[in-house]
Amino acid sequence: MRIFVDCDPGIDDALALAYLTAHSDVELVGVGTVFGNNSVDVTTGNALRLLRLYGRPDVPVSRGAGRPLVQPPTLAESVHGANGLGDIDVPEADAVPTTESAAEALVRAARSAPGEVDVLAVGPLTNLALALGLEPELPRLVRRVVVMGGAVRVPGNVTPWAEANTANDPEAAEVVFAAGFDLTLVALDVTMRATAPAAWLDELKTLEGDRACTTSSFLDFYVGWYSKALGERTCAMHDPLAAAVLLDPALATEALEVPVRVELHGTHTRGLTVADLRSNAADDDRPAVRLVTEVDTEAFFTRMMDALR
Amino acid sequence: MRIFVDCDPGIDDALALAYLTAHSDVELVGVGTVFGNNSVDVTTGNALRLLRLYGRPDVPVSRGAGRPLVQPPTLAESVHGANGLGDIDVPEADAVPTTESAAEALVRAARSAPGEVDVLAVGPLTNLALALGLEPELPRLVRRVVVMGGAVRVPGNVTPWAEANTANDPEAAEVVFAAGFDLTLVALDVTMRATAPAAWLDELKTLEGDRACTTSSFLDFYVGWYSKALGERTCAMHDPLAAAVLLDPALATEALEVPVRVELHGTHTRGLTVADLRSNAADDDRPAVRLVTEVDTEAFFTRMMDALR
Repeated sequence: MRIFVDCDPGIDDALALAYLTAHSDVELVGVGTVFGNNSVDVTTGNALRLLRLYGRPDVPVSRGAGRPLVQPPTLAESVHGANGLGDIDVPEADAVPTTESAAEALVRAARSAPGEVDVLAVGPLTNLALALGLEPELPRLVRRVVVMGGAVRVPGNVTPWAEANTANDPEAAEVVFAAGFDLTLVALDVTMRATAPAAWLDELKTLEGDRACTTSSFLDFYVGWYSKALGERTCAMHDPLAAAVLLDPALATEALEVPVRVELHGTHTRGLTVADLRSNAADDDRPAVRLVTEVDTEAFFTRMMDALR
Repeated sequence: MRIFVDCDPGIDDALALAYLTAHSDVELVGVGTVFGNNSVDVTTGNALRLLRLYGRPDVPVSRGAGRPLVQPPTLAESVHGANGLGDIDVPEADAVPTTESAAEALVRAARSAPGEVDVLAVGPLTNLALALGLEPELPRLVRRVVVMGGAVRVPGNVTPWAEANTANDPEAAEVVFAAGFDLTLVALDVTMRATAPAAWLDELKTLEGDRACTTSSFLDFYVGWYSKALGERTCAMHDPLAAAVLLDPALATEALEVPVRVELHGTHTRGLTVADLRSNAADDDRPAVRLVTEVDTEAFFTRMMDALR
């Protein structure tokens, strides 16, 4: 599998990279970075550090968008720490970013192997929207896209209705959902039901080696935020769950094929991912995406632990 | 119990009136009418006919708003029939509407018995919004309001997100939800889970007398629409469920106290009822309403049948 990752590390982005790098059959053709959990300067540095930590310092990292298409950027330092990795000092990488932008790197990767590259997009969708602007044929050039984003049938996490990645660039998300990708949406609908059990977090602490220990250290910060928000010792696993679904679509045990739109103009609902879920939904000229509604949580947590060993 | 009913009959409005008129301890202080399921001309005539059918021709009917506050009106003839009562010929009443409007009638009723009148609002909330304009103290003058409307955690019924009564006058709903009433919201969240079982519809057909037979006749039209929409022989019982919750709040076995807003400006979400359902919801300066999330469906259907005997 040839995978291009677009991300904003970010603690759960780190776990997604850990998951992918643990699979020897995965060829990481490139990593793009974007603002989101922190500034693009910080997320780019973190992507390089994490690829070193996870034993893949050779993977090219391309710095992407530093701001959303339209709105001003907002970051998530309270969730991910001032350095985006729980304020844990992850050793600096020797590698530097490529000279091309994330959007250009994605387009080049897709053109170089038409129909073979999968995209994992776990940050704001700005880079993907820019790539579509550079190459309108992108939905035919890549094989499929798995997006972590949206909250279709559940509350949001940054507003009552909007999920962070979508809220961070609603226009970009709307562009991507309209584009006609073979697109799987791993939204809060499933990620908030696949939260880490305390026992799993405890087991992680028993693993040895830099890979597991450093991950566990910055995960503690994330667990701290979620434990306060949810009232129990846990954390969401948004991005690694999307990575796991990309590697094994069978992890998504239930899904709906529905057109999804992003509300751009609401007073209360900007950033809301809208799908017509009525049983008598009318035909729609927007291409459907695959909204994952159930996942095999147990299998995911087993594999996530294995990926950190 | 002294109750003012604001309605747009409409087949399920008829069932709400049947429910209330079957309870001898209920004093119907007035019925206001509004556009919605049909024009206000038709819904006013229907309110008079239904009160005659259900043995309460003495209840004063006041004609209310013929259009929403802001948007142009839309009607629901496909669901309720061209005459609003399933195209069944319900005998005309001798009574005529009062000379005052529904909003004025509601204000007068509330002022005449402060803290004693309950309001059942099962149409677009235009009359209530107008009444608030006439009497800003209305939330302190009435005891409580039960509204059938909204779709907070479930899809809508006239758009992917909006419920008919709210979509029919979003601005009025927003005014009412903001006003500080002791307000219980019986939304699609519960009404679409309290649909009539086929066996219940069959049993209704065995009842004798005009009350049951005429109701069953026009209910057939409504069942026809819902059966097509939902793929089984059934219908929703939106308005009578709200009436039942007003008469016995214990029928609502679970509820959330949450501020509810109406999205007025969305491209896809106008008319959406928005509540902050996150576990870490921030404090809000909007007064909370009681969003019913579970009802005792079995008790409701038993009582609804009894009300039609």
